[in-house]
Amino acid sequence: MKGHSGCQQRELSDYLARSFLPATDAAAFDAIEKAADRILEEVGIRFQNDPETIEQLRRAGGVVDREVVRLDGSALRQIIRRSAPRSFRLRARNPDRDTVVGGLACTSFAPIYGAPDVLLESGQRVKGSRDIYRQLLAIAHESPGLTNTGHMICVLDDVSEASRAFEMLLAHLTCSDKPFMGSIASPEIAMEYIDLTAAAFQRPPQTGACNLLHLVNCTPPLTYWENPLKCLRIIARAGEAAMISSYMMMGATSPTTIAGSLIQGYAEVLPGLALTQLWRPGAPVVMGILAWPFDMRSMQPNFGDPASQLVQLYSSELSRRLGIPSRGDGAVTSAKVDDAQAGSEGARVLAASVVSGADFILHSAGWLEQGRCVSVAKFRRDAAAIAETYLQTSIACEPPAAPDPAIEAEIRGRLLKIAMVA
Amino acid sequence: MKGHSGCQQRELSDYLARSFLPATDAAAFDAIEKAADRILEEVGIRFQNDPETIEQLRRAGGVVDREVVRLDGSALRQIIRRSAPRSFRLRARNPDRDTVVGGLACTSFAPIYGAPDVLLESGQRVKGSRDIYRQLLAIAHESPGLTNTGHMICVLDDVSEASRAFEMLLAHLTCSDKPFMGSIASPEIAMEYIDLTAAAFQRPPQTGACNLLHLVNCTPPLTYWENPLKCLRIIARAGEAAMISSYMMMGATSPTTIAGSLIQGYAEVLPGLALTQLWRPGAPVVMGILAWPFDMRSMQPNFGDPASQLVQLYSSELSRRLGIPSRGDGAVTSAKVDDAQAGSEGARVLAASVVSGADFILHSAGWLEQGRCVSVAKFRRDAAAIAETYLQTSIACEPPAAPDPAIEAEIRGRLLKIAMVA
Repeated sequence: MKGHSGCQQRELSDYLARSFLPATDAAAFDAIEKAADRILEEVGIRFQNDPETIEQLRRAGGVVDREVVRLDGSALRQIIRRSAPRSFRLRARNPDRDTVVGGLACTSFAPIYGAPDVLLESGQRVKGSRDIYRQLLAIAHESPGLTNTGHMICVLDDVSEASRAFEMLLAHLTCSDKPFMGSIASPEIAMEYIDLTAAAFQRPPQTGACNLLHLVNCTPPLTYWENPLKCLRIIARAGEAAMISSYMMMGATSPTTIAGSLIQGYAEVLPGLALTQLWRPGAPVVMGILAWPFDMRSMQPNFGDPASQLVQLYSSELSRRLGIPSRGDGAVTSAKVDDAQAGSEGARVLAASVVSGADFILHSAGWLEQGRCVSVAKFRRDAAAIAETYLQTSIACEPPAAPDPAIEAEIRGRLLKIAMVA
Repeated sequence: MKGHSGCQQRELSDYLARSFLPATDAAAFDAIEKAADRILEEVGIRFQNDPETIEQLRRAGGVVDREVVRLDGSALRQIIRRSAPRSFRLRARNPDRDTVVGGLACTSFAPIYGAPDVLLESGQRVKGSRDIYRQLLAIAHESPGLTNTGHMICVLDDVSEASRAFEMLLAHLTCSDKPFMGSIASPEIAMEYIDLTAAAFQRPPQTGACNLLHLVNCTPPLTYWENPLKCLRIIARAGEAAMISSYMMMGATSPTTIAGSLIQGYAEVLPGLALTQLWRPGAPVVMGILAWPFDMRSMQPNFGDPASQLVQLYSSELSRRLGIPSRGDGAVTSAKVDDAQAGSEGARVLAASVVSGADFILHSAGWLEQGRCVSVAKFRRDAAAIAETYLQTSIACEPPAAPDPAIEAEIRGRLLKIAMVA
């Protein structure tokens, strides 16, 4: 391999610090916003199979061509800035565990979301199950590092698809009294989840507060699928929080460059964020732009790559410019075991999220193997590291009080009904 | 264990992001400087067994009481700001590999410094030796992540103490043509090292450039030992660079608090930095304030602790206020093997250094077990991670050309003479 000189090396250099420290450089962010506006105006975003959303965007000034709507970015920003809250209270069954998302509040940390497999502490690798889910929640509850117990820490493979959301809800309500995230399995389930949670919390409606935060992903490039759009409408109208995220694979579903991905991601999340305010002004939202270089050898994203950290640093600033909270990712890694690679990749991503000022950090604990596996041992270690690194505490949480038996009975009844239909 | 509520948890919180992001807050830095000034004025610094240094400080306005000199902090800052360069060129035998330290230049990365033990790739743990040193240098040379080959990567246990510096110099000159660091084994050796390096580089004197960077540590609390003071004088007068560092153990050699350690460290480095300019206005300097919580169980510092990261973020800003380059640390860890702990602790420290804008990062590769051991495998991994994370490159360096045979002969002659005297 031909070597390169020190001069070339300096030309190749692309430091996090050098790139970011002077980035009070408003011109760079103006340029990103302007480029995203051009995408929105000239190319538009596809909103699949949801005429109601398209009609709403048309009324807000969008130019509709079948499912594609071309939009005015600065108008979308105006809609968001006019009513989206700078911060909101994400409530818990136990009011002492309420968290504030955004503003000057501390970062929220939630565990991995969506892992099909589980690596047990015995070393055995199994499919996710209801029992394991409850065990993971018990650990999440007693870990001071996790301020939110999340959603779908692992897939409940031994439970029918129709029942999974309710089994998870039951677990979040009985194994913990910390805040958690909502379901977007379907618009109907999202609504039921919202209603049952409200009944379980028994807390009166309150301005600036909600009970659930939902992960609503667009599907890069430049597309929203039907289900997230319908869920988003229900969530926003109910006054519950949505975390509008674009999760890009650089070189596969977005450009290979950092700037290109930031521009695409911003163009993607902007209409989603504006929709929440169109459905209900003041509905709480969080913005997430995440991009991971796609590895053509493994056909998978490369977690822990520095490009993603730069995207994170810029995306948190883009959200501050909109005046809304931002999302970061936690200890994500491409490593298959919890080794030095997992430790260093995860710590780099998490550090970038925290330093960027992200308000809600998903995938904070347990993530292994591109998120396909939750490791119970790593779950504990990650949660402990957050507590010691970012919270300066290691006091475990006291066990939760049992929830209202009537609610538990109602959810169990609903599960029984689903089972009988099936 | 008694649990704690969400509210208490928020009170306990001490986030990197929240603490640092608003730290364009000049008042906090003014307060640190003012408190350090009070220490300098009321307590003073002990300069052991070096009347020449004490006399120089007296002439600069210091109030001398035997070895303790009480000083005016703002006068020291004036001395530093008047002549210390914002950046300097640290030259290499191969001019293509010159690096610039400070200003808007890219960060320099140097390997671990001072490890007595070596963990070989076979898993065997041995004492450092001349052969191993040369092997480590060969790896450092071909690693694009390391822009400086450092000094004393491991201790040369099979070489007499009197010969070690020259054996190392020979190795740095023959196994690589990248920049490296100087020796402070004794004032005489420091001088010889400087002269021999200059002869080997065969590069004419040049304003704003030097050949060697020296690690000059004060000894907390509030003390400089004789040898570093005498070396410092020689180094500065020769126009070579000194990295004045305070390496504190919080709770043992400095206060347990972040603010307290920053204040003490700043009071300690300030006179050292000023001395370089008193000995020779314009002499290149780097400032380092590093503090690691001391663990009373293991009687060792805890590397990877978040407190140190906050110290780093603030100390880099303190150096920018002085207008001089700053030091950070790399992948340091308390872990005994290169595992998830090593990966995450190291990545956190390194990320804090890079994000803080540190200009020269020591201990970037190989560090294990509180720095008592250099792991060859970790050396490779750390260097590769820097290249990919912070330099966005992985092109290996071409082999170095052989140095001038006359210089090699001269160093070998000197080694022979030492051996004969012994």
